[in-house]
Amino acid sequence: MLDFTSEGIIKQLSIDCVVFGYEQATLKILLPKLLSKGEFWVLPSGFIGQHEGVDEAAKRILKERTGIDEIYLDQCRVYGGAERNNKSFIEQFLNLSHETGNFFDKDRLKPFEDRFISVSYYALVNIQKTKPVKSNIDESIEWYDVKNLPHLILDHNQMVLDALEALRNNLDRKLIGFNLLPDEFTMKELQELYEAVYDRPFPNNNFQKRILALNVLERLGKKFSGEKNKAPYLYRFRNSGSLA
Amino acid sequence: MLDFTSEGIIKQLSIDCVVFGYEQATLKILLPKLLSKGEFWVLPSGFIGQHEGVDEAAKRILKERTGIDEIYLDQCRVYGGAERNNKSFIEQFLNLSHETGNFFDKDRLKPFEDRFISVSYYALVNIQKTKPVKSNIDESIEWYDVKNLPHLILDHNQMVLDALEALRNNLDRKLIGFNLLPDEFTMKELQELYEAVYDRPFPNNNFQKRILALNVLERLGKKFSGEKNKAPYLYRFRNSGSLA
Repeated sequence: MLDFTSEGIIKQLSIDCVVFGYEQATLKILLPKLLSKGEFWVLPSGFIGQHEGVDEAAKRILKERTGIDEIYLDQCRVYGGAERNNKSFIEQFLNLSHETGNFFDKDRLKPFEDRFISVSYYALVNIQKTKPVKSNIDESIEWYDVKNLPHLILDHNQMVLDALEALRNNLDRKLIGFNLLPDEFTMKELQELYEAVYDRPFPNNNFQKRILALNVLERLGKKFSGEKNKAPYLYRFRNSGSLA
Repeated sequence: MLDFTSEGIIKQLSIDCVVFGYEQATLKILLPKLLSKGEFWVLPSGFIGQHEGVDEAAKRILKERTGIDEIYLDQCRVYGGAERNNKSFIEQFLNLSHETGNFFDKDRLKPFEDRFISVSYYALVNIQKTKPVKSNIDESIEWYDVKNLPHLILDHNQMVLDALEALRNNLDRKLIGFNLLPDEFTMKELQELYEAVYDRPFPNNNFQKRILALNVLERLGKKFSGEKNKAPYLYRFRNSGSLA
């Protein structure tokens, strides 16, 4: 964990990570729940060391708060309203927490009652390839269906909505990097991924046309499953696939 | 101008604005040149007041440094490498500037030698609708062809490249808001805009198909210019045009 008392962090600047997970045609999000008598769900969040790049800090925070390493995080946006601070959250949290242990001490948290500007990051991962681990300030860490999220602290629900929009706007371009599908997949599997991210159906013909136009897929043999005439083609991503 | 000596700004955080301008089928960028014996081209830049939202600060900075008001700035990205600071630029600038007047004093600039994280913003404007004005720290403020930019300080050239990529990725969605064309325009005029932004030709038929698929144009009558059979259709943006 980053030392909260450290003077070695950039003041008034924080990072929040929106980690989308994909599994069985469903889009989820990874949320730690803080160790407290109250129910505080948060995005995995933290601060930036004086000698640490912002992108590096995001990776470290994600690792510390979720146990997840080596995933590609992308910047989403900056939240910087003049009135944005953690004051009421910290008060509420301290009121409910003092009986459950003292991970947070009032004096140590004082500097974090200031106005804070936050940089959000997002990623999309294959849930089966990750093993989230709760940190020592978390009661739990779980995947939640994006369509049925709990109430998060501060503006974190809005951050999820904005990250979802960014994900939709960039899915075509990031498809390969996200590494969400098996090495070989059917058009239907790819379509299910799009339908989960966009939360709407794509007509089959249009979808196939749209995806093939991206020029990143290589068609392989058919996937025989018994029913001869229904065997779908398998595809894989071209190594040199350009999504520009 | 923001008071550089003020304690009332967020420390170690700055804003840089990439303002693209469009005119006569050419994409340009607005650059102040600092008042100095040396040649320092910079993006319009500044700091964030303690009681000012980040987006508001960007608008204020743009207004102060370029005289341009009321344009829609969008966040681009955060530049936050651990080694990113203004130290060598400030030294170089002070060495060359002390004979030309003292807008910047060594002691006052000291805090800005720290590591700085910067948030970049970008916009695309119709050059004919703006009247840039140099501030009291600028020798000049001019539009420069994006394909032939001077060397900018720090990582500002990289910021331009990243903003150009963001502009290309978002042009379809932002077309209406940017307000770059006359109220009624031909398909050719719209195509010229795309060709300027993407710096490549679009085959006529493909372009028209692509744009019409966005479902934001309303076709009006023909634009008669004398040659009867060559009159092109005029278009305008639908009020309710959705670019989602």
